[in-house]
Amino acid sequence: MNSISITFLGTGSAIPTEKRNHISILLNYKEENILIDCGEGTQRQFRKAKINPCRLTRILITHFHGDHTFGLPGLFQTLALNSYQKTLHIYGPNGTKKFIENIFQTFIPKSNRIKFDVHEVKGKFLETKDFQITAFPLNHDCPCNGYLFEEKDRLRIDKNKIKNMNLPNIPEISKLTLGKNIKINNKTIKFKNVTYLEKGRKISFILDTKLCPNAIKLAKDSDLLIAESTFLDNSENGSRLAKDYMHLTAKQAAEIAKKSKAKQLILTHFSQRYDNKEKTLLDEAKKIFPNSKISEDFMTLEI
Amino acid sequence: MNSISITFLGTGSAIPTEKRNHISILLNYKEENILIDCGEGTQRQFRKAKINPCRLTRILITHFHGDHTFGLPGLFQTLALNSYQKTLHIYGPNGTKKFIENIFQTFIPKSNRIKFDVHEVKGKFLETKDFQITAFPLNHDCPCNGYLFEEKDRLRIDKNKIKNMNLPNIPEISKLTLGKNIKINNKTIKFKNVTYLEKGRKISFILDTKLCPNAIKLAKDSDLLIAESTFLDNSENGSRLAKDYMHLTAKQAAEIAKKSKAKQLILTHFSQRYDNKEKTLLDEAKKIFPNSKISEDFMTLEI
Repeated sequence: MNSISITFLGTGSAIPTEKRNHISILLNYKEENILIDCGEGTQRQFRKAKINPCRLTRILITHFHGDHTFGLPGLFQTLALNSYQKTLHIYGPNGTKKFIENIFQTFIPKSNRIKFDVHEVKGKFLETKDFQITAFPLNHDCPCNGYLFEEKDRLRIDKNKIKNMNLPNIPEISKLTLGKNIKINNKTIKFKNVTYLEKGRKISFILDTKLCPNAIKLAKDSDLLIAESTFLDNSENGSRLAKDYMHLTAKQAAEIAKKSKAKQLILTHFSQRYDNKEKTLLDEAKKIFPNSKISEDFMTLEI
Repeated sequence: MNSISITFLGTGSAIPTEKRNHISILLNYKEENILIDCGEGTQRQFRKAKINPCRLTRILITHFHGDHTFGLPGLFQTLALNSYQKTLHIYGPNGTKKFIENIFQTFIPKSNRIKFDVHEVKGKFLETKDFQITAFPLNHDCPCNGYLFEEKDRLRIDKNKIKNMNLPNIPEISKLTLGKNIKINNKTIKFKNVTYLEKGRKISFILDTKLCPNAIKLAKDSDLLIAESTFLDNSENGSRLAKDYMHLTAKQAAEIAKKSKAKQLILTHFSQRYDNKEKTLLDEAKKIFPNSKISEDFMTLEI
């Protein structure tokens, strides 16, 4: 099974701290390297993580607030300086085309531009033979998407079932995993008899929203839910600030994880006021959803 | 004497490295905190340096290339989030008004804006009772200013000359330093007899230019010359790249320091290719101008 690797390039929110850059998350799966949001300084985080940004294939923008996007001009420029040859696909909510056009107009000379293609997306917008990605509108103070990455279910050969069949080691056998019956030595082998269905993995990204039904729908049955938890619910101003600025508290992120039956929750996008007090956020989430973790800059995990 | 303090918030060039952020330099003098250029990530460098960006009074932009300006949107936003109350004065070459206007249009919602005033400058553009700043057009591939900060010369009381005069400790005496004669106990004290002229300090900033006469003129008699040295002259491609991209080599920066009779040279704005090889740049400069130094991120010095 190919691993899906998640690297947190930044885990802070509006104001960066010594240890947390603005938000940015990299998902690697096979040849795909998909960046979710790109706060200021993301290109340097790539450098520190020793990941070549030219490996990028796509960028998913949740919304246009600065802490999610101010790293784009520098990243575009550095890709051009490094002779990025691919067409970079950029996805986001309504307004993304104008937003990206303005970035290039304002900041990037025509002589120093990469090839790119901007897509304003809602619902399922990308499907390959291996995975699909769906955008769910969330409820922030501007157009804002959450994203669901879903690996496709796969047929796998049940080695126990075929080990006594004495089959030759021929490429033909792999057709079984495509749902096709095969004939070997005049004997038909039915794929249904020797394969099992391996469920694809689901990873959901909820970055900037207030608690809303779509957040739970998006996260449904996720193997991993990555959710903002800008504020601590159980604090003097936390729940009020979350309401005023349309963010989640750690408690609400955990409620989404619980209601959506996610398997694991990683909290991110913390207000600077909780710098070095992240354990209070984690404790609050764990009370509702025990399998919760705090993200740190440069933390990598494999799903 | 009030110190003039220089803090290097970033010392890299187009592509940041693990230890060098893009260029940005802070000059503090009395109540003034003047930022020269603002590469991406500068607001986080402020945070790491434990300097409150709300202390900023002015920003001098040398030119619009990304490594000198991509930190502006995030800095403007963070100042607004921190309730910056002053009017931020922003200076730069022709085109700065449109450039700053585009940044606000593209990136900063109207509800989250600081007060600011943009000045397109050439020649002496700012004079206070303590200092003046002059912009010198340099020779880069776009409009580009170098800046000269000059403290004003001051009359100082010569303590040796007045110590036997038995003068009372009254505020009147300070008038002597304004070039005025005073009368104490019916005796006239002429300022010329009891004061000396203390020369003001000169700090010059040359960030992005090819070698040109104005660079030498700007740096003339500087107490401190801070100059880009993106490339190493004595290397396979260094002098060619410097020529092609209109930058200085370490050797050329040292030549400017020598010809201008600067007292000290600090090299900065290094290409990432010299990461951990900065000594080669320093050695090249020292051959021509011995009092040369390499800048590092967060290095602070008092002049």
